Amino acid sequence: MVKLYDYAGSGNSYKIKLLLAQLQRPYETVEVEIFRGESRTPEFLAKNPAGRIPVLEIAPGEYLAESNAILCYLASGTALWPEAPLLRAQVLQWLFFEQYEIEPTVGTVRFWKLTGRDKTQGSLLEKKTAQGQDALRSLDRHLEHRSFLVGDAYSIADIALYAYTHVAEEGGGFSFDSLPALRRWLKRIEEQPHWIPGPAPYSAAAYL
Amino acid sequence: MVKLYDYAGSGNSYKIKLLLAQLQRPYETVEVEIFRGESRTPEFLAKNPAGRIPVLEIAPGEYLAESNAILCYLASGTALWPEAPLLRAQVLQWLFFEQYEIEPTVGTVRFWKLTGRDKTQGSLLEKKTAQGQDALRSLDRHLEHRSFLVGDAYSIADIALYAYTHVAEEGGGFSFDSLPALRRWLKRIEEQPHWIPGPAPYSAAAYL
Repeated sequence: MVKLYDYAGSGNSYKIKLLLAQLQRPYETVEVEIFRGESRTPEFLAKNPAGRIPVLEIAPGEYLAESNAILCYLASGTALWPEAPLLRAQVLQWLFFEQYEIEPTVGTVRFWKLTGRDKTQGSLLEKKTAQGQDALRSLDRHLEHRSFLVGDAYSIADIALYAYTHVAEEGGGFSFDSLPALRRWLKRIEEQPHWIPGPAPYSAAAYL
Repeated sequence: MVKLYDYAGSGNSYKIKLLLAQLQRPYETVEVEIFRGESRTPEFLAKNPAGRIPVLEIAPGEYLAESNAILCYLASGTALWPEAPLLRAQVLQWLFFEQYEIEPTVGTVRFWKLTGRDKTQGSLLEKKTAQGQDALRSLDRHLEHRSFLVGDAYSIADIALYAYTHVAEEGGGFSFDSLPALRRWLKRIEEQPHWIPGPAPYSAAAYL
């Protein structure tokens, strides 16, 4: 059984748990207290040199890091990562978009807002908010005439982009008000078989 | 023949050109003046909703964006992107690491320094410099007992990480002084058949 080094509040970890639930695949979790330095110990750095969760232990002592790489690994051979080279590459395009345009903006601003850290970020908060809202607009534009991100079928691209996007309004940093295609797409994902909610809400108290 | 929407100073674009050279595959380029807004026109946004180069036109009207997704697409079926699911996922792990930990830190700080934009970044310059040097240390640690990033063979993971890493010292933001494994690996890559230099140096004058 695979073992997930997890943090309940992480959208990156939630992606993996959503996919595993939808694949109906059992797994164990190990909670890593990232805000108490548990992902920066020598033991953890041997699992992932970047010192971040999630990490998947796919066999004893064999580790895979980076949430979107883990999605690809787990979805190999399933319809959620299509094999045709062009579709496969288009899925990857959206996975890279997610880690570059959404996670460091929408994900980070939500974390700051929910934990009160937004007060000390100065102009960076404003910059990341603008970049994130711009990325959400790109997504909305792409979804205007599509049901899913790639090839008109649900894939790990939808799972990856959904994770931080659907909680973007929490904390008040972003708004879906003028993004109707994005809203419809979020609802469509929540209607998929074996969908589970997540990530766990941040509690400000835990980070003070 | 594929067509690359390119910017000569971009490390992300250089990755694609290095791979195409090593695959001995002919291609056309279209230079996009990104600092004059040419990647934000409605025509360009139809090619890539994120409004960024590189974009590869793989057939007339069929576009693929995100440099590392393009690497995967072009290397499909070659030894540079191994097919075994675990090796494939490990390559992806490093590609995501590159876009999250290296490109926005090492790549951005170099650009700022070479164009004089570092003067106006305040504490963000310091933060990105520390994060980038940390990422270079992670790379060095991983390479200590390895010749290449994944499975002891040259792959698109090496190409992607090499692009911004090998020019990290330009501008003075980063140093390889205590990173001997990283230095050896850079040299090893420059000895690969059909290696080409890049990216083009930034000229401060073009960005003032």
